[in-house]
Amino acid sequence: MTKKPLILVTNDDGINAPGIRTLIAVMKTIGDVVVVAPDSPQSGMGHAITLDSTLYVEQVNYKHGALKEYSCSGTPADCVKLAIRELLDRKPDLCVSGINHGSNSSINVIYSGTMSAALEAGIEGIPAIGFSLLNYKWQANFEACESFVKTITENVLKQGLPNGIVLNVNIPDIPKKEIKGIKVCRQAKANWVEEFDKRVNPQGKDYYWLSGKFVNLDGGKDTDEWALENGYVSLVPVQFDLTAHGVIKELKNWDL
Amino acid sequence: MTKKPLILVTNDDGINAPGIRTLIAVMKTIGDVVVVAPDSPQSGMGHAITLDSTLYVEQVNYKHGALKEYSCSGTPADCVKLAIRELLDRKPDLCVSGINHGSNSSINVIYSGTMSAALEAGIEGIPAIGFSLLNYKWQANFEACESFVKTITENVLKQGLPNGIVLNVNIPDIPKKEIKGIKVCRQAKANWVEEFDKRVNPQGKDYYWLSGKFVNLDGGKDTDEWALENGYVSLVPVQFDLTAHGVIKELKNWDL
Repeated sequence: MTKKPLILVTNDDGINAPGIRTLIAVMKTIGDVVVVAPDSPQSGMGHAITLDSTLYVEQVNYKHGALKEYSCSGTPADCVKLAIRELLDRKPDLCVSGINHGSNSSINVIYSGTMSAALEAGIEGIPAIGFSLLNYKWQANFEACESFVKTITENVLKQGLPNGIVLNVNIPDIPKKEIKGIKVCRQAKANWVEEFDKRVNPQGKDYYWLSGKFVNLDGGKDTDEWALENGYVSLVPVQFDLTAHGVIKELKNWDL
Repeated sequence: MTKKPLILVTNDDGINAPGIRTLIAVMKTIGDVVVVAPDSPQSGMGHAITLDSTLYVEQVNYKHGALKEYSCSGTPADCVKLAIRELLDRKPDLCVSGINHGSNSSINVIYSGTMSAALEAGIEGIPAIGFSLLNYKWQANFEACESFVKTITENVLKQGLPNGIVLNVNIPDIPKKEIKGIKVCRQAKANWVEEFDKRVNPQGKDYYWLSGKFVNLDGGKDTDEWALENGYVSLVPVQFDLTAHGVIKELKNWDL
C-alpha cells in the first residue's frame, strides 16, 4: 500500500470561502488534507507577514471538511509558516492555495496573497500550486475548476517541481465544456491603471478608494492573458529568485 | 540649464523614520524631491495593497524636508500608486525607497515593503531603487550610507535601468572607511527558520509571536549575502516578471 500524500491547503479569501471548500474536496480524493487558512479575507495582502502583532490559531470543524482544519488570524504567508513549524506532524508533500475568487494572472501575481502562500511553501522546499478562478464573486461557480485542479495536482505529485519553482494556475470563468485545455505560459506584461475615487467622510475629511482598470500591454500568444482570453487554463511556472541574471553583466560596467 | 529630476521618495518604516530622512537629504542634493510615505511602520507588508479599506492622505511639513511631503494611511505600494495617479504633477524621473531599518537582502526581498514600493514604481516604468541598512534599530547610524546612495542614484539617472528591472541595494552596518565598495550580485538562496513563541494571554487563550533565524544556504561568492558579510554594499537587479522561463519547455512535456 502506498502512503497517501500529506497536502496542506490554504488561501487568502479565508477559511469559509467557497473556493477553498472546492479545493479541499478535490484534494481529499488525492491525499490526507490539513487546512491552515486565514480567519478572514486577506486579498491584496501580497507576501505580508505578521511581525509586530500576535497570531491566534483555532482548530475548527467543517462538514465534509479536511482531517484537521485551523483558522488563523494572520496572513496567507503566516498560515504556511505556522503550518510547517507548529501545526503539522511532518513536512507536507504538497501545498495548494486557493481556489482564489478572482484572477492572479500576469502582474496580479505580485499582489496575490494566494500566490504568496504558495511561494512561502516553495521557499521551504515544498511543491506548491496557487489556483485562481477568474470570478471574484463569493457565489462563483467552481465546478469547472475541479478536473483541471485534479489533473495539475496529480502531475505535480508524480513529476515533482524543479527546485525554486511554484505554479500559478488561472482558470477562465466559462462552462467546463468550453475550456480547451491547459496551456503552459509566461506571465503577460500588464499593469493596473488606478483610479482613485476621492470622497469626503462625514467628519469632512478627504479619503480615497483604490480602484482601477487592468491593462494588458502584451501582444504575445504565449502569455497567460492570451491563454485565458482564448479559453485555456493558464499555468505559469513562477520563481522566487527575483534576480534579473541577464542584467548583472551590464551593471558591472557602471561607474560604482 | 538642465531641468532637475523629479524624485519620489517613499519607505515602509513610516514618514518619521530616520532612514527616510537621510534618504530625503541625499536626494535633495540631486533633484526636486516629493515624499509620499506611510504614516506608520509597515515592515513585512510585502506587496500588500489596500482594497477593502479607505486611504487617508495628509500633506505634512518637516524641517529640512522635501518640496512636498504626504503622509498616507496605506501600504508602501499604495503610497506609490497614490503619488503617481493623484499627488504628483508629472511622472517622476526616479523613485527611491528606504533607507530601510534592516536588511532586505536575499529572500527578504519577498517580504519587503521597501522593495514592493520600488517594484510598484518599476511596474509603472519609473526607474526605482530600494535602499536598506543592515541595522533594524530606530537609532541606526545612516551616515555611512550617504555616499553610496548618492553614487548609485546618480548612475541610475545617468544610465537608466533596463525595462522591468529595479535595484535592491543593501548596505552593511560598519563604519564607512571599512566598506570596500559596491558589488553587483545575485540574490542568495536563503530562508528563515521560524520559531513560533507560544504564549497564553490574560484571558487564557493561546497566541503566537513569529520570530526566527535567518539561514544562508548559498555558498556562492557572487551573492548579496557574501558581499555584505565581506564588507561590500550589495546591488541586485530585481525583476517583477516572475516567470521561470527556463522551466516552460519541461512543463510542456507534462500530461496535461
